Amino acid sequence: MITLGVIGTGYWGPNLVRNFINQPNATVSAISDLSRDRLQHMSSLYPHLKTTQDYRELIDDPGIDAIVIATPVRAHFKLAKEALEAGKHVFLEKPLTDSSEDSLALVNLAKQNNLVGMVGHTFLYSPSVLKIKELLDAGDLGDIHYVSTTRVNLGLFQDDINVVWDLAPHDISIFNLLLNSVPEKVHAVGHSYIQPDIEDVGFLTFSYPGGRLAHIHVSWLDPNKIRKTTLVGSKKMLVYDDCSNLEKIRVYDKGVDVHRHYDTFGEFQLAYRFGDIHIPKLQDGEPLKAETAHFLECITDNVECRSSFAHGHQVVKALETACESIRCGGREIAIDYKLDQ
Amino acid sequence: MITLGVIGTGYWGPNLVRNFINQPNATVSAISDLSRDRLQHMSSLYPHLKTTQDYRELIDDPGIDAIVIATPVRAHFKLAKEALEAGKHVFLEKPLTDSSEDSLALVNLAKQNNLVGMVGHTFLYSPSVLKIKELLDAGDLGDIHYVSTTRVNLGLFQDDINVVWDLAPHDISIFNLLLNSVPEKVHAVGHSYIQPDIEDVGFLTFSYPGGRLAHIHVSWLDPNKIRKTTLVGSKKMLVYDDCSNLEKIRVYDKGVDVHRHYDTFGEFQLAYRFGDIHIPKLQDGEPLKAETAHFLECITDNVECRSSFAHGHQVVKALETACESIRCGGREIAIDYKLDQ
Amino acid sequence: MITLGVIGTGYWGPNLVRNFINQPNATVSAISDLSRDRLQHMSSLYPHLKTTQDYRELIDDPGIDAIVIATPVRAHFKLAKEALEAGKHVFLEKPLTDSSEDSLALVNLAKQNNLVGMVGHTFLYSPSVLKIKELLDAGDLGDIHYVSTTRVNLGLFQDDINVVWDLAPHDISIFNLLLNSVPEKVHAVGHSYIQPDIEDVGFLTFSYPGGRLAHIHVSWLDPNKIRKTTLVGSKKMLVYDDCSNLEKIRVYDKGVDVHRHYDTFGEFQLAYRFGDIHIPKLQDGEPLKAETAHFLECITDNVECRSSFAHGHQVVKALETACESIRCGGREIAIDYKLDQ
Amino acid sequence: MITLGVIGTGYWGPNLVRNFINQPNATVSAISDLSRDRLQHMSSLYPHLKTTQDYRELIDDPGIDAIVIATPVRAHFKLAKEALEAGKHVFLEKPLTDSSEDSLALVNLAKQNNLVGMVGHTFLYSPSVLKIKELLDAGDLGDIHYVSTTRVNLGLFQDDINVVWDLAPHDISIFNLLLNSVPEKVHAVGHSYIQPDIEDVGFLTFSYPGGRLAHIHVSWLDPNKIRKTTLVGSKKMLVYDDCSNLEKIRVYDKGVDVHRHYDTFGEFQLAYRFGDIHIPKLQDGEPLKAETAHFLECITDNVECRSSFAHGHQVVKALETACESIRCGGREIAIDYKLDQ
Repeated sequence: MITLGVIGTGYWGPNLVRNFINQPNATVSAISDLSRDRLQHMSSLYPHLKTTQDYRELIDDPGIDAIVIATPVRAHFKLAKEALEAGKHVFLEKPLTDSSEDSLALVNLAKQNNLVGMVGHTFLYSPSVLKIKELLDAGDLGDIHYVSTTRVNLGLFQDDINVVWDLAPHDISIFNLLLNSVPEKVHAVGHSYIQPDIEDVGFLTFSYPGGRLAHIHVSWLDPNKIRKTTLVGSKKMLVYDDCSNLEKIRVYDKGVDVHRHYDTFGEFQLAYRFGDIHIPKLQDGEPLKAETAHFLECITDNVECRSSFAHGHQVVKALETACESIRCGGREIAIDYKLDQ
Repeated sequence: MITLGVIGTGYWGPNLVRNFINQPNATVSAISDLSRDRLQHMSSLYPHLKTTQDYRELIDDPGIDAIVIATPVRAHFKLAKEALEAGKHVFLEKPLTDSSEDSLALVNLAKQNNLVGMVGHTFLYSPSVLKIKELLDAGDLGDIHYVSTTRVNLGLFQDDINVVWDLAPHDISIFNLLLNSVPEKVHAVGHSYIQPDIEDVGFLTFSYPGGRLAHIHVSWLDPNKIRKTTLVGSKKMLVYDDCSNLEKIRVYDKGVDVHRHYDTFGEFQLAYRFGDIHIPKLQDGEPLKAETAHFLECITDNVECRSSFAHGHQVVKALETACESIRCGGREIAIDYKLDQ
Repeated sequence: MITLGVIGTGYWGPNLVRNFINQPNATVSAISDLSRDRLQHMSSLYPHLKTTQDYRELIDDPGIDAIVIATPVRAHFKLAKEALEAGKHVFLEKPLTDSSEDSLALVNLAKQNNLVGMVGHTFLYSPSVLKIKELLDAGDLGDIHYVSTTRVNLGLFQDDINVVWDLAPHDISIFNLLLNSVPEKVHAVGHSYIQPDIEDVGFLTFSYPGGRLAHIHVSWLDPNKIRKTTLVGSKKMLVYDDCSNLEKIRVYDKGVDVHRHYDTFGEFQLAYRFGDIHIPKLQDGEPLKAETAHFLECITDNVECRSSFAHGHQVVKALETACESIRCGGREIAIDYKLDQ
Repeated sequence: MITLGVIGTGYWGPNLVRNFINQPNATVSAISDLSRDRLQHMSSLYPHLKTTQDYRELIDDPGIDAIVIATPVRAHFKLAKEALEAGKHVFLEKPLTDSSEDSLALVNLAKQNNLVGMVGHTFLYSPSVLKIKELLDAGDLGDIHYVSTTRVNLGLFQDDINVVWDLAPHDISIFNLLLNSVPEKVHAVGHSYIQPDIEDVGFLTFSYPGGRLAHIHVSWLDPNKIRKTTLVGSKKMLVYDDCSNLEKIRVYDKGVDVHRHYDTFGEFQLAYRFGDIHIPKLQDGEPLKAETAHFLECITDNVECRSSFAHGHQVVKALETACESIRCGGREIAIDYKLDQ
């Protein structure tokens, strides 16, 4: 039985509390939040929880094995550092931190202390993404030419981070999993329409090894909520629409074949395949349930963490470099992760 | 009664023939095509048409008032030039030419000879685009912050022009009409996945006067056909989905209001409006019918042409500069139209 | 502060427990269920709850003001009767009972004891249905000609009740609210494809006062989940699609006008109006939250109950008569509610 | 080369003219219409056509092999009879006639004179219906339990026939093909909301051999145009949405299995299968092109006609009996085709 303390029970924290409570081999003993109101609300739902406005009580509590952090991102580094130094395993909401220097420090700190550090990149635990991974690994789509994603909606604007830091972590995390690698270069443009200096629209292009490109369009200024990812492979194409209730993944038996002719004309002959569409049934299951179970499993069974601090750091570094490219007017910049492999 | 000759009856020409024949004040007397098969097919549909493989017969025919050209783009300049020099009005399919030098020459040639020169930018005659123009001009959307369009499908790849020249003319033409101006700068990236050196995916960003931006995503490599344009205004937002049969335009009573507070906190307060959606009924009517009628009206009544050679040249120049930006790795480039205003 | 006891914490009961706990002026003190597993599960979520396998402990508990019943329908009558006789207010899941004799008895019993009796017809508390009611009452749609609903999906088959008892209660309850009356006659056909004698497909036609008809198509045998209701009014038409996330209600400015000509031809002239579509924004809000609040309000403030036992009885009687019509091969049968008005 | 004359060039006739002209082994030599305007319009499109207001000129013309009739249905019988008596093959728009007595007479007349009689049941030539037929014949769906169709829209009201005669011919024709049989009984209800005595809403239930049922909902009073057919088979389910541009057919790997247990409990155990969805690519091709080609092929190669007069008569008889059931308040009535087999 693993005992957890949760810091931050505002927007997302209550979901984590509920999910960890429902895990058979875990219990949440205490929560902390700066807001007395939030603590009272949580107490009314879970009267047995110890509540405090001082997170130090959780970190100092010898009965607590792991700390779950769901605060604004600017507090992540300090809280995680203290928890790791106190010998606790740490689960942090994404993004890991707001600077790659900090995220790299956390990677190293967890490693030195032999503790589990995990980031809440929930999509890595969703049936949709795992199904796509399965199809890719089985070679169903052939080689991936490029992936393109649109993640837009109206607001919620944030006053400390731009739309890239708000929405793109999901896509970078997903692509790193699906493409089994990390981007080498990035090239990005952004625009600030509503608040000066805080981009609300961004277009990012990441280069992955093997010439594979990933485009990401993020926006806080679109009337419709769209979360749509297109994968173009040499054999088939796939569209993942996360806003669809029942048909999230569609596999198109479509493609383009290139026939090279080494004759005098040197023409390319292209053959188009238009074919059936296949919509695979997905497993049921709340990603957050799988995610919280995975964290516990990493602690008890020492399995490798799918959304480790290293993974989280790679996402942070990619975001940071993309924003640097935006400031440089779209210049392509290499991404240096500084991770010991 | 205006008598027309049509050069090129391959893919699009037959539509022009049919529409001009159906106009009450016009007649098509002759057609030319390099392919004998096409001429025979057209004869079986319209036995009264004179057919020839030599387009010169049409240009030299004193009974013909106007020449309609629907050939591959590389032949546009030569044919249009000869027709104008022979004193014929000219209707050309889009894009006007494949170089801005040539398109500028045609603009001037038509002007010097006092002849009507029109480009087949059909969207300028579609009920959807005209409805959006009406809503914009009435101020319903407020000031436009930005427009964004996705025009993608699988193929048809072309071997002489890239996806930018193939698909983006529509959007530039539409934006120039809607925003009542022409872009000043462009910044573009493109990728060649299937054929070397012929881009099949492109992302273009045009800057219009007043800081308004227009993003265009074109692709020959998407499993779904998408033609979707989003206009984000200060009052409302609008989505134009040209692939929808019955609900092409949706007006969202959504928006973001910025309340500036000049207090010590200097914070921006943002208020989101989420509201009703309105789907206006559009007029019926085939754009091509309106377009062909407009050409005749320009000749007979001397009205100003909505898709004049000058409009066509502005599109060509914007395309050309976008492709230059792609070759320069995405550098922003000013667009110099060299038009006497 | 009202104290409640909940009998039945299987499929739907936990939602009621959660919602009543979250109401500021109520508390749940005890729950009962035949299954020890369910009680343990509920205890893990809400450790403060008293649990028992014997529902009598709740009914006999003088500290409990009201009993909430979420058991299979066959137990409804017995449990509600005992609770009312013990002086408790009663909230019952729909349908009220499985026979109109029983439901009428409960109506009278609650009335005699001056207790609140309410049925969980949740749709009467949904923002969508209330919005439609508002539009109808404002006369936006004109006079209603007919309403038609499709409520189909695959399974879940039940072994004690047919698809009519399973799915049609929602529609009858909604129509009675919207049309502000109860049906006078019914005419129904049903078919048993999978289990003998348990209909899995049904087509019901109810006649409301004023010649208004309501068609209901229910099925457990459709590959798609559909919940769609069409209201055809003399001025406008409305479609309510409960499976749509963001566009549940669409108002069509469409209609048919009849112009009578009392001339020799005696012809009817019909004019079609095709017009805009309007999608009103709906209030947020969980229907179950509004429903549970309403139950408490009925107790404390003596307001009239929107989904009273009388309403529930009218639904039961309509269902019962529809099933009688099915057994009679579709014969039209008058519905006799036997309610004192 | 087969020479045709076309009677009636109003709404649908021009499509038939165009399609027959485009067939390589046919020519249209003459057309007739009561309206001089329509004849002039057709002449402007096809200057070589002989036009007349007197249909007798076509029937008496010895150079004409076959007569195509696209007039209002009330004229069908008289025109077809005269054409057959003059030794012409006949193509008639659906429904064949407005009475089964007349349609039976035409069946016999064509047979006696050894002439081809074909009805324009276009759906029998559509790629969608033929694909479904192929799937059914291959056993992919298992045994068909029931089929259900919704064919509704707003107007166009007609003043001589009701909505059943207007819309249901399509479905009956399709079902007869798919189920490879004809309905034995029908049970129908209808309502007249707008014009007295002319039903604008109808619900029909046909019984096919083997206990298979077919439900048809037709309406002129629905704001949306819907053409959707659901086939529920023992193995899979299929939905055919004719209003979808690209995904007309969806095959659901869903179903219900019944496991009978002959034990003391005698319970039915139901197993639900939820599975993938498959959207087959359909052949391109205009149904009218295939239909007109088939008519010519029936004449030249003596192949059996897919939409023969006998097929058309079966549709007429089913419609007639359905309307009789409506007049009898929904009574089930056997359908007696009186066809010699």
